[in-house]
Amino acid sequence: MSQPIRVTVWNEYRHEVKNEKIRQLYPHGMHAVIAEALRGAGMDVRTATLDQPEHGLSDDVLNTTDVLIWWGHVAHGEVKDPVVDKVYARVLAGMGLICLHSAHYSKIFRKLMGTTCNLKWREIGERERLWVVHPGHPIAEGLGEYFEIPHAEMYGELFDIPPPDELVLISWFQGGEVFRSGCCFYRGCGKVFYFRPGHETYPIYYQKEVQRVIINGVRWAAPTAGPKPQFGNKQPLEKVDAHG
Amino acid sequence: MSQPIRVTVWNEYRHEVKNEKIRQLYPHGMHAVIAEALRGAGMDVRTATLDQPEHGLSDDVLNTTDVLIWWGHVAHGEVKDPVVDKVYARVLAGMGLICLHSAHYSKIFRKLMGTTCNLKWREIGERERLWVVHPGHPIAEGLGEYFEIPHAEMYGELFDIPPPDELVLISWFQGGEVFRSGCCFYRGCGKVFYFRPGHETYPIYYQKEVQRVIINGVRWAAPTAGPKPQFGNKQPLEKVDAHG
Amino acid sequence: MSQPIRVTVWNEYRHEVKNEKIRQLYPHGMHAVIAEALRGAGMDVRTATLDQPEHGLSDDVLNTTDVLIWWGHVAHGEVKDPVVDKVYARVLAGMGLICLHSAHYSKIFRKLMGTTCNLKWREIGERERLWVVHPGHPIAEGLGEYFEIPHAEMYGELFDIPPPDELVLISWFQGGEVFRSGCCFYRGCGKVFYFRPGHETYPIYYQKEVQRVIINGVRWAAPTAGPKPQFGNKQPLEKVDAHG
Amino acid sequence: MSQPIRVTVWNEYRHEVKNEKIRQLYPHGMHAVIAEALRGAGMDVRTATLDQPEHGLSDDVLNTTDVLIWWGHVAHGEVKDPVVDKVYARVLAGMGLICLHSAHYSKIFRKLMGTTCNLKWREIGERERLWVVHPGHPIAEGLGEYFEIPHAEMYGELFDIPPPDELVLISWFQGGEVFRSGCCFYRGCGKVFYFRPGHETYPIYYQKEVQRVIINGVRWAAPTAGPKPQFGNKQPLEKVDAHG
Repeated sequence: MSQPIRVTVWNEYRHEVKNEKIRQLYPHGMHAVIAEALRGAGMDVRTATLDQPEHGLSDDVLNTTDVLIWWGHVAHGEVKDPVVDKVYARVLAGMGLICLHSAHYSKIFRKLMGTTCNLKWREIGERERLWVVHPGHPIAEGLGEYFEIPHAEMYGELFDIPPPDELVLISWFQGGEVFRSGCCFYRGCGKVFYFRPGHETYPIYYQKEVQRVIINGVRWAAPTAGPKPQFGNKQPLEKVDAHG
Repeated sequence: MSQPIRVTVWNEYRHEVKNEKIRQLYPHGMHAVIAEALRGAGMDVRTATLDQPEHGLSDDVLNTTDVLIWWGHVAHGEVKDPVVDKVYARVLAGMGLICLHSAHYSKIFRKLMGTTCNLKWREIGERERLWVVHPGHPIAEGLGEYFEIPHAEMYGELFDIPPPDELVLISWFQGGEVFRSGCCFYRGCGKVFYFRPGHETYPIYYQKEVQRVIINGVRWAAPTAGPKPQFGNKQPLEKVDAHG
Repeated sequence: MSQPIRVTVWNEYRHEVKNEKIRQLYPHGMHAVIAEALRGAGMDVRTATLDQPEHGLSDDVLNTTDVLIWWGHVAHGEVKDPVVDKVYARVLAGMGLICLHSAHYSKIFRKLMGTTCNLKWREIGERERLWVVHPGHPIAEGLGEYFEIPHAEMYGELFDIPPPDELVLISWFQGGEVFRSGCCFYRGCGKVFYFRPGHETYPIYYQKEVQRVIINGVRWAAPTAGPKPQFGNKQPLEKVDAHG
Repeated sequence: MSQPIRVTVWNEYRHEVKNEKIRQLYPHGMHAVIAEALRGAGMDVRTATLDQPEHGLSDDVLNTTDVLIWWGHVAHGEVKDPVVDKVYARVLAGMGLICLHSAHYSKIFRKLMGTTCNLKWREIGERERLWVVHPGHPIAEGLGEYFEIPHAEMYGELFDIPPPDELVLISWFQGGEVFRSGCCFYRGCGKVFYFRPGHETYPIYYQKEVQRVIINGVRWAAPTAGPKPQFGNKQPLEKVDAHG
């Protein structure tokens, strides 16, 4: 039998601590709710937060993480560059990475994308409807043709990312915008999934469809034991009749 | 526990019957060797051939097939259009399809691609080396950076296909050509994988790396239970203030 | 100086003939309005319609067409297969093709895509807003971040096409749907652009932004004098030490 | 009439200064040969080098550059980060960038890709053959099905880049490797083209096919006057009945 996927759910964990209303929604942090959902899907889950030593992401934790989930918002700048560099190296070596909502603007996502990852936003609690545009994609498993989030922060195009390698979900917003909300990227040996929903002021991570997409995303992003690329100076594999 | 993937290996099965030398290589047909490899990977495997009634692809067989493997060469024209149409509909509904070697020119592959799928070829038994260019892709699982086929029919670019949605393998040939040898395509709810190796005059389907890629391809192409798209006239989901 | 691009605007031209209200909008057919816009951009433009001999698409016309624009709706089935086959061959040989609105369901578009190209639709004259999601793409030249069509037929996802090679526009509809409205595909040596707007009951083809996208699309899809692929049996370019 | 494209050819310009043999090949630097070829194609061309103030890339130069060509090798580390950041911002704002040969490992290319951009290499002067796999692409204009470089440094896969948005050329090397040699990427409003050939010890930039690809690349990468994306907090375009 295959081993359960080892997931680390990383959360900035500031809103829930500082804001009473948000704490009522997520008493133990958004990471706790996400972790619980993943455990329910049979995964082996830990959590880590910004204010822990090394942001909770020691070498030991990273080296035993198959898929890292990232939530950040107000404290992107406090994430230390050496930690970002280690996560980056791990992704290129094969670790999956799932960036949620405002993690679009995290250091790690921007470093992996090569663009600003900027976007439009609005916070009036409008309705969002997420349409599946890639019905055979593993991340769409168990979904209907669309699902709704009754009250959401709006994110609107242009979302300044490279063209996604696979585009799974497009959001419609009541106020007139669209957004590429479920985007897959390949980087090195790793897989990166950006998933839009999840503002801290709404109970979005309790919603079944949202949990389902995150679970599917983890399965899609889990490492596969492919070749370990080797770089540098190589002898010819074939006899060569060259001038060298 | 999840159910084993149900695979049907379809083979034209003419070379092995008519040509003594090929029959010695594949006494029960290439499909038998491929089927055996897939069974060894825990899959639930049947075979079907051109000269069976309905080419062995009755509604019942197709409706209980998760992934169909296709090998054809000299008798593409004998495959009846209604069978091709049924396979096509099944792929769009989610069935995986793996087209091997000369199946690049099968009716079903050309219909799904929308191009001629033509290419260059040469049969002098030269060496082929397949390089992995997408190391994190599930189809590259278990492979090294490259593998070799000691004697192969050459296929050369231009391979007249649409740009693959995912390109996993590129072949190098001793005589001076390259070829996109492992190509993934999404069509409707289905996944299509084209894999180049496999000429009937060489023991290529006994080779472990080749079997490994086919097994990986089946796992990648297996259907996922995503949304069932509905088409046609739809009422608005949202109140609309229109002139209608 | 380079030669003007030679465009043929093909229109089914049935609605405008049979329906008084539509004729008032487009007295000489939608093709006449589109042709006029393209001429204003310096292009060399002809038109052709279904009821002309060979649908107006003789060998001579096709062989001197750089980009073909296609509009069809109620009479897809009347387009003769040999004409479709000739257009198909021309696209693969390098001719550009722009399919407008209900041409998503034309024989030629479906043949080039390899999928059903089906979708959802609704005709209540709701508002459409088209967002640019690929701002550096030549087809977005001269556009703002979005443009609106005040009254449009809705087309909704799932749009059953292969993942576009380049996705330029996504539509938002008042009633709650989204749609991939500007999609680029490469097929053989040719380029195909699907552009959604254009229902016959609205003056959409008079709208400046819509004309601009069609002009840009023609420029993007115009043939380039690249290699003429050759297929079939080829001698090795390199000395080969094979067993052959 | 449209204005000529304004190109700046940037060269590290160290090999040609320090090494007598290389200076004989490129007495005024590789940039001079490339600039001459681009001028012959009607472009408005300047050059800039590492040892000039601000590496020759002042705000004024960058702001009046449509396409920047980059060649670097031994001195990537000497390129100052503020200059890299300015080039990066200009690319995202629409300036084209063409990275040649060992510029795969330049700071600017790696920053835009989000990966290491590492590869295999070997310097024995073997033969390279570049095959066109995207015959309708503007960068393939004027080429045959392949062209050869008689003596080249080998670059081999894995080339650690994101999957290219468009793959135009694949190299075959005599010694047994393949390489994705002509790769297009979209970043922000800008276009990036990586083109492999060009080692300093061979007269590769005098070769007509190589010059042709660079000229085509410049035309493909030239900015288009698309939308200027705006980011941040936006009012709804549509009336919203939300809880806000």
